[in-house]
Amino acid sequence: MSLNIKDNEVDIVIAALRSDLTAFMEKWRPFFSRFHLIIIKDPDMEEDLQIPPGFDHQVFTKSDMAQILGATSINFSGHSCRYFGYLISRKKYIISIDDDCLPARDNTGTLVDAVAQHIVNLKTPATPFFFNTLYDPFCKGADFVRGYPFSLRNGVECALSCGLWLNIADYDAPTQVVKPNERNVRYVDAVMTVPVRAMMPMSGINIGFNRELLGPALLPGLRLAGEGKQRWETMEDIWCGMCAKVVCDHLGLGVKSGLPYVWRGDGVDVKGAMESLKREWEGVKLMEEVAPFFQSVRLPRTAVTAEDCVIEMAAMVKEQLGPLNPVFAGAADAMLEWVKLWKAAGSQGA
Amino acid sequence: MSLNIKDNEVDIVIAALRSDLTAFMEKWRPFFSRFHLIIIKDPDMEEDLQIPPGFDHQVFTKSDMAQILGATSINFSGHSCRYFGYLISRKKYIISIDDDCLPARDNTGTLVDAVAQHIVNLKTPATPFFFNTLYDPFCKGADFVRGYPFSLRNGVECALSCGLWLNIADYDAPTQVVKPNERNVRYVDAVMTVPVRAMMPMSGINIGFNRELLGPALLPGLRLAGEGKQRWETMEDIWCGMCAKVVCDHLGLGVKSGLPYVWRGDGVDVKGAMESLKREWEGVKLMEEVAPFFQSVRLPRTAVTAEDCVIEMAAMVKEQLGPLNPVFAGAADAMLEWVKLWKAAGSQGA
Repeated sequence: MSLNIKDNEVDIVIAALRSDLTAFMEKWRPFFSRFHLIIIKDPDMEEDLQIPPGFDHQVFTKSDMAQILGATSINFSGHSCRYFGYLISRKKYIISIDDDCLPARDNTGTLVDAVAQHIVNLKTPATPFFFNTLYDPFCKGADFVRGYPFSLRNGVECALSCGLWLNIADYDAPTQVVKPNERNVRYVDAVMTVPVRAMMPMSGINIGFNRELLGPALLPGLRLAGEGKQRWETMEDIWCGMCAKVVCDHLGLGVKSGLPYVWRGDGVDVKGAMESLKREWEGVKLMEEVAPFFQSVRLPRTAVTAEDCVIEMAAMVKEQLGPLNPVFAGAADAMLEWVKLWKAAGSQGA
Repeated sequence: MSLNIKDNEVDIVIAALRSDLTAFMEKWRPFFSRFHLIIIKDPDMEEDLQIPPGFDHQVFTKSDMAQILGATSINFSGHSCRYFGYLISRKKYIISIDDDCLPARDNTGTLVDAVAQHIVNLKTPATPFFFNTLYDPFCKGADFVRGYPFSLRNGVECALSCGLWLNIADYDAPTQVVKPNERNVRYVDAVMTVPVRAMMPMSGINIGFNRELLGPALLPGLRLAGEGKQRWETMEDIWCGMCAKVVCDHLGLGVKSGLPYVWRGDGVDVKGAMESLKREWEGVKLMEEVAPFFQSVRLPRTAVTAEDCVIEMAAMVKEQLGPLNPVFAGAADAMLEWVKLWKAAGSQGA
């Protein structure tokens, strides 16, 4: 936790789905104030954003998107607006936290600096090729256990850090309805590398990543037909996480899961979850195709960058998943469009 | 944690490397006393065992081994004496805890019932085919996170539960020498399934397993030439854990790691670790061959029991690792001998 974090290495991207960010930003002030913030206003939102003073920030709106990107088929509304922030950042690391999350407290009652923990996760090696039973071996007071091969102890670069949530857990619509009163109160004091070839459901609520290494794979691909503004209705981050994991596995990069926690929301909108459920959450059905697909994807050796990998995957999605459901063909198109936007944004920046 | 544990389903196997078990057993009395204990005396030990009254236990010595097994090439001395207990048990579940470990306390200061936690781990499903970011979904207050495929939520049977250690961590000789004062103080309140195809270094210090499903794979295979009575010098459990993991992956069974913790020892024998190191710990070198071997093992479909799998693996060990080091040929022989002993013990029992 004592790594040196340079302010100019980090952008914090905030997808603003609520117009009043005052409480959110005041609570995060001790941890956000030294960094540059990229705030993306949900293009569907009419109201003006309320942002407290004293932050080094830029706000981007629907008209900025149109001006910067021109015509694009990608839909940046709702939670997906954050991806616009990923596109225009020029920093090495991006941290993204949903605007209904506040700093959590650890087991000793101390407020957690989620930004610092993500950066520590990203700056210390990951160990995807062998499982360390004592969790993160690079954490203070920990190490590799007996039997861990020495040749694997250097680890690999970590490109993606997936944080967790106390209070309201990130459940899907059916689980929200079945367990409306369940709260996650278990603070698990651990970070671990997700093993190579193991797929996990990444939540976009609280993540950090190395934009230079992995940025093109952090993409808005799958968008459900009935997707609303509620997290339990989305699949964009689940899809994005699988793309990112496949790319990391292929490129020899690591993905970590665990700390930092954020404190999520104050209540579950049970009625809203019921409404979502009545519309049949398409995600239930789609995941039965999505999970085995990503588990089986193997990329060619010629794919040596995240961009290459996304292009290869898009073709496989179109071919293998496209015939099953039009939403997959749409995802494949969005992946290719994303790479185009990424390249264009990169050349503008340079 | 509210599962019904039947006394007649569980044997606790204790490898006695110390003659005086009084303190060990008194501390464990609240958790051990309702179960049958199988105590195996290290065949190298001369002194009589001291066991406090009030336990339902059997003690087995060198002469019992000779009488029950007849002539065998397997060396049951040191930590390996526990395997004799696995062989003669007739229970569904076995719990095995080293005699230098005492009950640990959790974050609230409560003594941990390691037996109950192992049984809970074994009686609730494992989820090896997809990673759940909120750890054990069957734990109270937890569930599957959004995006976890519903078809995988039933999980599979858990056959092996690997617990952890507070205070003295299970490090190898080089790490012990480098960090003689390091103590593991981090109580990570989590159980997780080790994903399919991910290999981990199982420590035999604190484990539980389903003997009926996996017993033949919990075997004394690899024995280092210079192996002594210190945990940091052994590799038997690392090898055993890899065999067990490959078998579980092949048979569609699960392996969990995490809770329960035990409190391990009071001090590191730094001088002893230095002595081990001077002799060059063979484990450092061997793991470089062992890990990739087990990562690449694929068993044929015709192997449908743990016994079948061990026989197949023994042949692969002999062929692929045998030429590299005589210790591997010895391991292959021991694996085949173990299956013979297991079958003989089973027919005696029936």
